[in-house]
Amino acid sequence: MTKNIEDASVLPYHMLHTMLRVRDLDRSLAFYCDALGMHELRREDYPEGRFTLSFIGYGDEATNSVIELTYNYDDEDYSHGTGFGHIAVAVSDIDAAFERLTRMGIKALRKPGPMTYTATNGQRDVIAFVEDPDGYRIELIEA
Amino acid sequence: MTKNIEDASVLPYHMLHTMLRVRDLDRSLAFYCDALGMHELRREDYPEGRFTLSFIGYGDEATNSVIELTYNYDDEDYSHGTGFGHIAVAVSDIDAAFERLTRMGIKALRKPGPMTYTATNGQRDVIAFVEDPDGYRIELIEA
Repeated sequence: MTKNIEDASVLPYHMLHTMLRVRDLDRSLAFYCDALGMHELRREDYPEGRFTLSFIGYGDEATNSVIELTYNYDDEDYSHGTGFGHIAVAVSDIDAAFERLTRMGIKALRKPGPMTYTATNGQRDVIAFVEDPDGYRIELIEA
Repeated sequence: MTKNIEDASVLPYHMLHTMLRVRDLDRSLAFYCDALGMHELRREDYPEGRFTLSFIGYGDEATNSVIELTYNYDDEDYSHGTGFGHIAVAVSDIDAAFERLTRMGIKALRKPGPMTYTATNGQRDVIAFVEDPDGYRIELIEA
């Protein structure tokens, strides 16, 4: 039975995932799990649709938002537009995290340091950027 | 003092946000807050850098992943590549949620229904797609 659409319980209530298309699941899992510390939570194969989904994150999907990696059997390389920016993850020691990642061969885009500008409320996070195997930008924020 | 980079505590531990660049913050907040039920958690102005950040989501950033909307004062329209796919949110009654959103004038991309294909493990979510004001795709999943 469909709920009354005026009822607030009809509203979405949880951010489930951000979906990224990737060219090589093993390569992506090495990056997101081995390097970034996520876990593969589930994997679904859709041979009829010629794609596989891998859900990766820091904890259970019921309470955490995760990344959905989509591997399409037949696609070529993907393009990066200018709209989507990045995914940010929290680190407790950004210098140590950055050193660990770059020693593993992860591509660095920006060394750790304060944001270029300070917000009018005084906020100025310490950040770094690395690149995933498909060229998506990952921000590290010391928190 | 920098930690030993071999220590697992160096790994990132939380997915903070997904960043999307938008052309009109008020228009985006009407979509994500009024229609999708998120809340604006904080806003930071960086007049020197000529941008404003708005963090929106379903709960506190310490335990939830959120969306970072970036408004750059000077940018033109953004392009959508083929790599980034969408952001998915959970709804308890997808027919009611979809009806509510479309009655609000939200652009529908796919009506509610089961995924086109069934996974080999039997998974076949009931999904719908709508479009945000900048053309980003938002998936509704009944969960």
